[in-house]
Amino acid sequence: MKNSNFEHSWPYKVPGIPDESFQRGEGIPMTRSEIRTLVISRLRIFEGAIVYDVGAGSGSVAVECALQGGQVYAVEKNREALDLIKQNAINFGVSLEIVAGEAPQAIADLPYPHRVFIGGSGGNLERILDSCHERLISGGRLVFTSVTIDPVPVVYHFLKSRGYQVDAVQLQMAEASPTGNNVIWKGQNPVTIISGEKGGEG
Amino acid sequence: MKNSNFEHSWPYKVPGIPDESFQRGEGIPMTRSEIRTLVISRLRIFEGAIVYDVGAGSGSVAVECALQGGQVYAVEKNREALDLIKQNAINFGVSLEIVAGEAPQAIADLPYPHRVFIGGSGGNLERILDSCHERLISGGRLVFTSVTIDPVPVVYHFLKSRGYQVDAVQLQMAEASPTGNNVIWKGQNPVTIISGEKGGEG
Amino acid sequence: MKNSNFEHSWPYKVPGIPDESFQRGEGIPMTRSEIRTLVISRLRIFEGAIVYDVGAGSGSVAVECALQGGQVYAVEKNREALDLIKQNAINFGVSLEIVAGEAPQAIADLPYPHRVFIGGSGGNLERILDSCHERLISGGRLVFTSVTIDPVPVVYHFLKSRGYQVDAVQLQMAEASPTGNNVIWKGQNPVTIISGEKGGEG
Amino acid sequence: MKNSNFEHSWPYKVPGIPDESFQRGEGIPMTRSEIRTLVISRLRIFEGAIVYDVGAGSGSVAVECALQGGQVYAVEKNREALDLIKQNAINFGVSLEIVAGEAPQAIADLPYPHRVFIGGSGGNLERILDSCHERLISGGRLVFTSVTIDPVPVVYHFLKSRGYQVDAVQLQMAEASPTGNNVIWKGQNPVTIISGEKGGEG
Repeated sequence: MKNSNFEHSWPYKVPGIPDESFQRGEGIPMTRSEIRTLVISRLRIFEGAIVYDVGAGSGSVAVECALQGGQVYAVEKNREALDLIKQNAINFGVSLEIVAGEAPQAIADLPYPHRVFIGGSGGNLERILDSCHERLISGGRLVFTSVTIDPVPVVYHFLKSRGYQVDAVQLQMAEASPTGNNVIWKGQNPVTIISGEKGGEG
Repeated sequence: MKNSNFEHSWPYKVPGIPDESFQRGEGIPMTRSEIRTLVISRLRIFEGAIVYDVGAGSGSVAVECALQGGQVYAVEKNREALDLIKQNAINFGVSLEIVAGEAPQAIADLPYPHRVFIGGSGGNLERILDSCHERLISGGRLVFTSVTIDPVPVVYHFLKSRGYQVDAVQLQMAEASPTGNNVIWKGQNPVTIISGEKGGEG
Repeated sequence: MKNSNFEHSWPYKVPGIPDESFQRGEGIPMTRSEIRTLVISRLRIFEGAIVYDVGAGSGSVAVECALQGGQVYAVEKNREALDLIKQNAINFGVSLEIVAGEAPQAIADLPYPHRVFIGGSGGNLERILDSCHERLISGGRLVFTSVTIDPVPVVYHFLKSRGYQVDAVQLQMAEASPTGNNVIWKGQNPVTIISGEKGGEG
Repeated sequence: MKNSNFEHSWPYKVPGIPDESFQRGEGIPMTRSEIRTLVISRLRIFEGAIVYDVGAGSGSVAVECALQGGQVYAVEKNREALDLIKQNAINFGVSLEIVAGEAPQAIADLPYPHRVFIGGSGGNLERILDSCHERLISGGRLVFTSVTIDPVPVVYHFLKSRGYQVDAVQLQMAEASPTGNNVIWKGQNPVTIISGEKGGEG
């Protein structure tokens, strides 16, 4: 049983599992390896940290958070994505709390998190941010990624106005791709990563 | 007759014809609109300038050079591409000298150029550069674009070592692309544009 | 008199005057050569077009629009910038209508434009957009550039909701910069260019 | 004593120490936080791995490798940089083998490495690559970063021709920077990261 998945597992402590090691589903988004590595770094996951992965998609960020010692709640409404998360958790030998549903409802009864990751969002961004912000413990960290034009100023100013220390980076990446006798740079879609640290109460 | 092509023509003097206005062929490269605009600018085409477009592909750069008043020699070895160039010239109402073959042989008997554009290259880059450099008049300009990793240092140092004033820029572009209720930034492949001005002899 | 500025003039019809050919002032923004070239292209300036350059800064876009045959209204509130625009117009031998003030007031009595360029904006973006949109003739074009995070979704959706055909590109550029024995890629600040064509009334 | 440096230490297991936590020296290069994070990930550092950091600069990569459990040899010829590496090692409470000198000579007597990082290079790139390649154990990994135009094809083809599994990514990043009432995207210099895994001998 265990052996059948052995080849998929990740024997390293550093984040950055290759994309092809995850099971994927059509139309279910996955945070790419390099972006995921930076997200894990920005989240500053620690052993025992309670982590929400809100809109977990294929579960790749959730799996990497768990491999770093996080106690991860993977929140997702899409049924196929939920199966995928389960399968990826098994393949990498981690245990995740998989929560079917959407924020804010789905997170209302979970323990207060040290870390929150939101990988983009559908229509109710403000409510998701509000509910995550309210539950996040002081000194906790929230990381948001976006590949679309709308959320960037919304999330940036939301965090600033709540007193978070905020930084944001935008990455445009290209991969070398051998093609015939040449090696072409293939452009990826740019991603914005916004990170905030919630102020203390003292 | 003329009417049938009227919708494709470009009524403006500024460069930057949209990509979809050109006829294209499978596997035949086309310099994208924004890059093409910058190439025309860097070439500093003028009325009556003799221009080589070496490896003309679909002819989009050649067409735009001609629209700026250049007397353009579009050099291309691929038979399908030659047809495409012809068709695109007709569609935009410009006259091009279409030269079947490859540099250096194919340019050996052409008039000395004021401007040379090389849109990437196959295996014999050094020989192409050599022959174009030898023929380019003093004060003339050579522009090279690359989407692959190898030619960039080769062309940069080739021009520097021949006394050209050289500049190079690398562009990574993304286009806003409406997708469902969101607008996603779609990354394009990065392109390097190297421009050189040949030193005078005085 | 005229001779003293001769060396600054631009003998070409193509856009893309080098940055160093313009006079600049501390703290007065200038649209860089490559971005300016793409702006001129996206504006699709034509001979006789009435063009607003709203927030003209150092006047580099206004000058290039005038060189393409536009009848340009350069709107600017900053006194030093106004002097700079005047000087740059003289240096390039073009005539500009220089309008001291801010949109919407400053444009209220100008002729209706075929083309509008807005190079970023201060606090009253919505009112500037509204007033430019109202005056822009049907089929006219509006181009907006931004180096900041806030205006991008605002302008994009403003134009979409008024029925414009909209496209937007984001450019991240780097320039080759010789440093010691090496040539380093120096990153520039990314710029977003949003272009819209106003729907006809027919 | 120890306490005075306590505030600089990094309490997390994930890579990605902020740049400002390192001591820096004028003219001594430092790999930026995001790039460093990706380098650590691509190196796939493991507990007990023997790591060469060739041209260690300020020692930031060496420190992060050591924090991941690597047994790190930081090779550097510049005297000031050597002091900096020492200080940064102390500040983060890690022990590094600091090797004064240059590859290939300086690495000739070190134990064979599992991992090699080369953060750019001066004039003798080929000899450095050769010597690192010869010493790297089968299945080991070599990561190279470049901010200049020349090394990219050299390193890429060097690794390919020796049978490495190679991938390369190019990153152009921008950081949100509050300026007056606006938040500007500030472009960083693009970096290329080339990673290779040496083929086994079995």
